[in-house]
Amino acid sequence: MVNNIPVEKAKTSKIHNVDFDNLAFGTTYTDHMLVSDFNDGEWSAPKIIPYQPVTLEPSSKIFHYGQSIFEGLKAYKDEQGSVWLFRPMENFKRLNKSAKRLAIPELPESHFIDGLTALLRLEQDWVPQNPGSSLYVRPFMFASGTGFHASPADKYKFIIALAPSGAYFSGKVKVLIEEKYSRAANGGVGYAKAGGNYAGQFYPTQLAAEKGYQQVIWTDDNNHEFIEEAGAMNVFVRINDTLITAPTNDRILDGITRKSILDIAKDEGIDTEVRKVSVKEVVDAAKNGSLKEMFGAGTAAVVSPIAAFGYKDVDYELPELGDSYASKLKKRITDIQYNRAEDKFGWRYKVV
Amino acid sequence: MVNNIPVEKAKTSKIHNVDFDNLAFGTTYTDHMLVSDFNDGEWSAPKIIPYQPVTLEPSSKIFHYGQSIFEGLKAYKDEQGSVWLFRPMENFKRLNKSAKRLAIPELPESHFIDGLTALLRLEQDWVPQNPGSSLYVRPFMFASGTGFHASPADKYKFIIALAPSGAYFSGKVKVLIEEKYSRAANGGVGYAKAGGNYAGQFYPTQLAAEKGYQQVIWTDDNNHEFIEEAGAMNVFVRINDTLITAPTNDRILDGITRKSILDIAKDEGIDTEVRKVSVKEVVDAAKNGSLKEMFGAGTAAVVSPIAAFGYKDVDYELPELGDSYASKLKKRITDIQYNRAEDKFGWRYKVV
Repeated sequence: MVNNIPVEKAKTSKIHNVDFDNLAFGTTYTDHMLVSDFNDGEWSAPKIIPYQPVTLEPSSKIFHYGQSIFEGLKAYKDEQGSVWLFRPMENFKRLNKSAKRLAIPELPESHFIDGLTALLRLEQDWVPQNPGSSLYVRPFMFASGTGFHASPADKYKFIIALAPSGAYFSGKVKVLIEEKYSRAANGGVGYAKAGGNYAGQFYPTQLAAEKGYQQVIWTDDNNHEFIEEAGAMNVFVRINDTLITAPTNDRILDGITRKSILDIAKDEGIDTEVRKVSVKEVVDAAKNGSLKEMFGAGTAAVVSPIAAFGYKDVDYELPELGDSYASKLKKRITDIQYNRAEDKFGWRYKVV
Repeated sequence: MVNNIPVEKAKTSKIHNVDFDNLAFGTTYTDHMLVSDFNDGEWSAPKIIPYQPVTLEPSSKIFHYGQSIFEGLKAYKDEQGSVWLFRPMENFKRLNKSAKRLAIPELPESHFIDGLTALLRLEQDWVPQNPGSSLYVRPFMFASGTGFHASPADKYKFIIALAPSGAYFSGKVKVLIEEKYSRAANGGVGYAKAGGNYAGQFYPTQLAAEKGYQQVIWTDDNNHEFIEEAGAMNVFVRINDTLITAPTNDRILDGITRKSILDIAKDEGIDTEVRKVSVKEVVDAAKNGSLKEMFGAGTAAVVSPIAAFGYKDVDYELPELGDSYASKLKKRITDIQYNRAEDKFGWRYKVV
């Protein structure tokens, strides 16, 4: 229960050092964090302690065998000062899906939901009210148990840390459709929010950045024929007036923003299709003018319009639309998140 | 230079608490470790300090984005008490290959080779002399820099830790040829010793263990048609008198034991083939009696004979051979490693 979670209060607060008008993404942390340890076969009762470093043995398996998973969600403050989460149960369920695939013990629901609620109530002053800002919530779990044998650890740590944050991307994004590297294997861990899925993307993303692209759009690892996701976000394509995104599978993250955007789009009367999207289809549509929009969708990225994509050394510019799906859908979803509109889907969760 | 590496000595030694006759694999650590930190664009001069915990911010990227790589090698003590490494430059080169793919800054050669030599000279009493035992050497590198933005860290830590160890596998190994899950994607990080590659194998390996198998033999993620590697080791198949192993590629680790075994086998006059091996070929060979042996090869596993493999709910037993390639090749390679035989390939590296 939320009120039963013990709190060890920080002696002083750092909040007065923070410039809430100029927040970067995920670089400032609040005064407290929630922790629970898996030991002797069970997760300990969660507790809130001052935000502090973690001390680990050099043989802790997190350093060697990559057992780490995370979630990302945001807390939003409305004009009345109430604090809201967006579909937190979806994050909880996905955390445990990731845990299972990485052979990490699953977390009890109350540790997540009650723990998060208690932590956010304590830290509610840290939720920014500035437009576009929010309190980014980072639940994560990793192997703290030791040993050089390549097998699952016997001890794990679960932490929720909070970071008041501004926008993830600034401005429109230029992306590269990948032809060589891959993010995930069939039968692999691509659908999990596993640390290793991110590290593998950095080098190809650096190569893309050297050519002027901010993100890579990953394609299937067999033939690089179909568009999958963009690592930090799922990808939507609008051809004529139809909004299309790839189906989730064991390579593609089941994004909460992705599925919410699909529901909102249907509610808006937009024709949506969840099906494989080939690179050829997108390139052909760009050439013949039927490609109207591309955008990414994710908790951190919200809805990020794509200005242009590169493929086989050619850049394809997307048109500038006055009344884009991206802007309409972004407004709808953020209005729900910030409690500025009716919550007809029942997605908001009131923290305080 | 080896002698210039500063040493902060441990106040007491733990060596007298260690039962060198009953060593597990990688669970006991020596008194000291080597550390170097990447900061402001360069790796600091390595130093030797007492083996001790590592303290990290909760926002350190190792916990979130999986930037971690490692190496594994062994130090062997001969009958005269001299300590040897086996092809350590190969580990150094592979560490930097892994680093590059994971967007981790590459390490200078002297940090690795001189650092390792200095550490092993200091800890030489920890190298076991018992048959089958050795001092397992674990160089590893991970992102210590902070931030929730999914991008490479700006700070990293390199550590070499040492663990006197017995055998990785006890007895013969029963393996399962995987039909559903995969270890690596084309264009992915399978060839790197990245932490995330291991975490992804644990759950399928647990499922295999529930059916009585100790290891999974991974197959390609497209059709599960070809044998790749076994996660903790590369795989060799002997059909009639020909020894076959898969070529390395971006999904398969370029094992140092693997390539040494190939060289030794050729030197022994054994017919070797490096080519794709289909599951069908192995199953057919098992059925018609031409499959004589299967074994794994890796630093930890050395040469581990496979007693049986499972595929599509059928177990295929391998014959018990009096004079197997596995036993012959294991003797040749360990005789070189422990300085019991001529080193015609120039693989040994004398530490002290």
